[in-house]
Amino acid sequence: MSDMKTVNLKNIKARNKSLLGKRVYTVLNNTLSYQWEALNDQVPGAPKSGSVNNFRIAAGEVSGKHYGPVFQDSDLAKWMEAVSCSLALRSDDDLKLHLEEAIALVSKAQEADGYLDTYFTIEEPSARWTNLRDKHELYCAGHMIEAAVANYEVTGNKTLLNVACRLADHICEMFGPESTKRHGYPGHEEIELALVKLYHATNERKYLDLAHYFIRERGKAPYYFKIEAMARGEAKLDELWDPSKLEYFQAHMPVTEQEAIGHAVRAMYLYSGMTDVALETGDETIAQACRRLWDDVVKRKMYITGGVGSSSFGEAFTFAYDLPNDTAYTETCASIGLIFWAHRMFKMDQDAKYIDVMERALYNTVFASMSLDGKRYFYVNPLEVWPEVCHKREDHRHVKTERQKWYDCACCPPNIARLLTSIGKYVYALDEDKNMLFVNLYMDGQVKFNLNDKEIMLEQDTVYPWDGSISFTVTSNTPVTFSLAFRIPDWCKKWSIKINGQEIQEHEKNKGYAVITRAWVAGDKVELMLDMPVMMMRANPEVRADAGKVAIQRGPVVYCAEEADNGPNIANIKLLAEPDFAVVYDEELLGGVCYITAKARRAKADGYDGLYRQIDEDYEETVVKLVPYYAWNNRGEGEMMVWLRQV
Amino acid sequence: MSDMKTVNLKNIKARNKSLLGKRVYTVLNNTLSYQWEALNDQVPGAPKSGSVNNFRIAAGEVSGKHYGPVFQDSDLAKWMEAVSCSLALRSDDDLKLHLEEAIALVSKAQEADGYLDTYFTIEEPSARWTNLRDKHELYCAGHMIEAAVANYEVTGNKTLLNVACRLADHICEMFGPESTKRHGYPGHEEIELALVKLYHATNERKYLDLAHYFIRERGKAPYYFKIEAMARGEAKLDELWDPSKLEYFQAHMPVTEQEAIGHAVRAMYLYSGMTDVALETGDETIAQACRRLWDDVVKRKMYITGGVGSSSFGEAFTFAYDLPNDTAYTETCASIGLIFWAHRMFKMDQDAKYIDVMERALYNTVFASMSLDGKRYFYVNPLEVWPEVCHKREDHRHVKTERQKWYDCACCPPNIARLLTSIGKYVYALDEDKNMLFVNLYMDGQVKFNLNDKEIMLEQDTVYPWDGSISFTVTSNTPVTFSLAFRIPDWCKKWSIKINGQEIQEHEKNKGYAVITRAWVAGDKVELMLDMPVMMMRANPEVRADAGKVAIQRGPVVYCAEEADNGPNIANIKLLAEPDFAVVYDEELLGGVCYITAKARRAKADGYDGLYRQIDEDYEETVVKLVPYYAWNNRGEGEMMVWLRQV
Repeated sequence: MSDMKTVNLKNIKARNKSLLGKRVYTVLNNTLSYQWEALNDQVPGAPKSGSVNNFRIAAGEVSGKHYGPVFQDSDLAKWMEAVSCSLALRSDDDLKLHLEEAIALVSKAQEADGYLDTYFTIEEPSARWTNLRDKHELYCAGHMIEAAVANYEVTGNKTLLNVACRLADHICEMFGPESTKRHGYPGHEEIELALVKLYHATNERKYLDLAHYFIRERGKAPYYFKIEAMARGEAKLDELWDPSKLEYFQAHMPVTEQEAIGHAVRAMYLYSGMTDVALETGDETIAQACRRLWDDVVKRKMYITGGVGSSSFGEAFTFAYDLPNDTAYTETCASIGLIFWAHRMFKMDQDAKYIDVMERALYNTVFASMSLDGKRYFYVNPLEVWPEVCHKREDHRHVKTERQKWYDCACCPPNIARLLTSIGKYVYALDEDKNMLFVNLYMDGQVKFNLNDKEIMLEQDTVYPWDGSISFTVTSNTPVTFSLAFRIPDWCKKWSIKINGQEIQEHEKNKGYAVITRAWVAGDKVELMLDMPVMMMRANPEVRADAGKVAIQRGPVVYCAEEADNGPNIANIKLLAEPDFAVVYDEELLGGVCYITAKARRAKADGYDGLYRQIDEDYEETVVKLVPYYAWNNRGEGEMMVWLRQV
Repeated sequence: MSDMKTVNLKNIKARNKSLLGKRVYTVLNNTLSYQWEALNDQVPGAPKSGSVNNFRIAAGEVSGKHYGPVFQDSDLAKWMEAVSCSLALRSDDDLKLHLEEAIALVSKAQEADGYLDTYFTIEEPSARWTNLRDKHELYCAGHMIEAAVANYEVTGNKTLLNVACRLADHICEMFGPESTKRHGYPGHEEIELALVKLYHATNERKYLDLAHYFIRERGKAPYYFKIEAMARGEAKLDELWDPSKLEYFQAHMPVTEQEAIGHAVRAMYLYSGMTDVALETGDETIAQACRRLWDDVVKRKMYITGGVGSSSFGEAFTFAYDLPNDTAYTETCASIGLIFWAHRMFKMDQDAKYIDVMERALYNTVFASMSLDGKRYFYVNPLEVWPEVCHKREDHRHVKTERQKWYDCACCPPNIARLLTSIGKYVYALDEDKNMLFVNLYMDGQVKFNLNDKEIMLEQDTVYPWDGSISFTVTSNTPVTFSLAFRIPDWCKKWSIKINGQEIQEHEKNKGYAVITRAWVAGDKVELMLDMPVMMMRANPEVRADAGKVAIQRGPVVYCAEEADNGPNIANIKLLAEPDFAVVYDEELLGGVCYITAKARRAKADGYDGLYRQIDEDYEETVVKLVPYYAWNNRGEGEMMVWLRQV
């Protein structure tokens, strides 16, 4: 039972000023309507979605076959969640209409017993729940539940929530420990965290219990995925997934005994659900497993960009320190899942170290996954790209050199949208017991919250992350005593805080937070100054791919060298030991960024008539220009590198 | 019409002393009898071959189904060629008996019209010549012809040669420019070079003409592989090879217009056949294409180990400078093919630069492909291995971390054997017009040859490549005037020559050769001293995989760092700018090698609790031990690296 609360999105405003706010406004201005078109198959040249049309067919409005992967329903569900949250930030009549249309469709597509999944309703009505491993019914249900809870929280309307409850009730009848029910669990985790959200929204304990059951049942022998495969008449798991590969589904052993393994998005959603359940039930074994898994991921299997899942085969984790930069998979959804999980781990332990990882994943992989205009997306997020090799080598085929309009498997684009329109939940957190507001992320805007039955308003003013100064102004009318806990990021080694212009001497961090408690009055101003030098980051020497290399980071932003600035053959760049970094803010560049210049060398190719020679390296001095990794590939196709060699 | 002749293998002896001689004796002592067992399915734990048994079935001696790939006949043929050549070096009664048995079987398996291919005889007698693209009939025929010519040259017996001629005559009836014949060409090149060999052995011009035809017809539109696919009732090429992927077969355009592309072994055999045909016919367009293709391969697409074909997908060339070390394919057969081709290019241009590449491929990739005991083989020859990544990452699955007993597709093991038992042909070459003997490779032993109707004997004494001194003694009885052309390898920047103890001042190289002409008398001694320092080689900066790295080479031998000597995490080794190399010959190590020590640094992992930190590199000084690349993985599984980082 967590003491931590999120602030209702209705009470958080963002401005189009700090980078985070800008990305949110890109989603509000461009992405949501673009994605509605994509989901309705109206974007010229984009792969067909069929997601909305599948609901039309299931609702009986049109006839036809189900289109796309079995989990296509989830794309619309994520979009509905995204739009629901967006309405808290800004009302938009067109989006509202589309959302209402979608809610009506979904309601109509739901079957009498509460079942809701267009694939089975259209194609295999008699085969419901016979293949949990592959068919994603519980996954799609989870996303619809999340959409419903978000819609209810922002709009207060219960139409979609009721759909979700009827669906969840149906699932509760199907699954559980009772001998009359199926002892299964999802092939793609997601419903666990959704059921906990529904429990929060409805206070129905059975939803939490089922989530707990799914997690505890998972991976027990005899394996449910084998039992149901036998029941389908399959002697064994199909050949694509060798029986030993139940690891792909995190279903090879009880989750409390696992290391981080298998399909990375599945893993992140599972761990998020586990943390939720541990928080709500006090199941300490699960809580400890979450902490252990966290260390396994962030200390051994995560890219500096917050990407996870280093292998395209199985979109999966491989093993400790296997983090190749050019063949990285690092699916967008996996980093979004990592953010979900980090948020829950923070709620469990109130430690800023989780937010440090969240911010890393958000400002690098997630921001990178969407073009500056919000209409093109990466599914895979490599840290190094040589376009020719991506086009011509089969083992790089998964690496797209340019963001795409849509995907046949389009899980990522609407996932970005729903994360960014709900970002307020990640910016602030409330601990009512401690009478404390946590400020976890820095985003220009305002927040309204209640502590001790007092309503408090706080303005946040910043252009973070281009500058490390963030100011807060209390705008409440009456004096009120509470604590503000400002996160001091792990990358920040020097900071200062002024209150009403007076520097305070208390510089202690507690679990990563600088906490200030006082009786605040309207107009009180806190100025937080985070020192933000350019940093040369090194990887643990066990990461063979990064041996001898450095990554440049400033604040939470990881930088890269692009061909657009530096010409071809980025691999040939070698930073000097003292690169003499200069940071320049350029309003015109890439939507407004700080770029960095650094002194470097490049080997000359002059001496070579062919491939190999016994010669000393002949180099020329040069200045390299680095731009934020998240902004790469907004100027056409070209080479890109995050980890750079150094003298 | 080439002026260059090879010396008959009967007149070349090797001793088990220089490295090349040692490898030859390993094949004589262990490999040939081991491979006979493998081909007879008698090696416990090895994949089944079926090659001999397929001939037994086709000969009517036993009943059964054809086993293995359609090209399984070629494995036995290569072994027959290897054993035939071995008899010139050393008579062996057991091998002789096995060879006679094999020849009898092959003769019996040949059909009345000369056709010979066990797959079609057993499985699809009516489908002969209907799928040149995939079914390897002409490839298998080529290998049988090569075996026959070798057998005839060494033994003088015509049994197998007659089989080959009947087969070749049958093929001449099937293919050619005449309207009554099929206008096809092989899916896997090989028969072209074999037909030229048969032409040499028989002086039958039609064999040369057919080889010329196959080469000139190849890649013409409309494409034969499409025409025959249509004739088989296939509307288009099967999906594995997209129509645009005729490149895989070097069949997408006329060979004279191609760049080096597609399946690397196919390419090497094709280019060898092209060079043969250009040499014999004077077709200058083909000759120019060969020179252009040569530059494309060795100046842009070859590893420092003489490996070619950098992609596992299609076992193929990719594009210029794409030479990854850890996912390299570099099939053993491709480097053997490169040696074949280099030999022919040398015959065409009498330039030592071709032998430089031959020696690089031989001493590195080819030697590495066989264990020190001659009984285990690599098919793929990577330049960098981290075993865990090979076991756990799908994109490294083709990289075996240990040599194997045999392969389901076992083209490589008998190819190594036939190359090494015929190596004498590559060591010496005769130019009768110039009255000159070329000494191309350095191998302890003797050679007997005729120039100007005089028989001349020459002893070669050396422990090359561990030492750069090679001495030659003329043992002919009468004074005779001729030239000796000693190859001065490209890696050798300083050399000296003494005749009968007297240093000669003529240090000019002509196309890579130091030529000495005199009236030689018995007992004349030439001492060639090749300076052989440790060299730090760099790759062209366009090779992104080698940026900032050096490879250590001494003489023709490329070195590597192995886990057995240096512990795990070889990637963490960084040579000093002045590594202070020391060379030590160790008789006990890896069959007797010079190892090299070098001063280096290794980053400490101490400062890391996790993955990424802003710290200066903390390192410790160390001494790295390097062993010849060819000898890697003879001490168990472990990490290995050729290209090492340098300060």
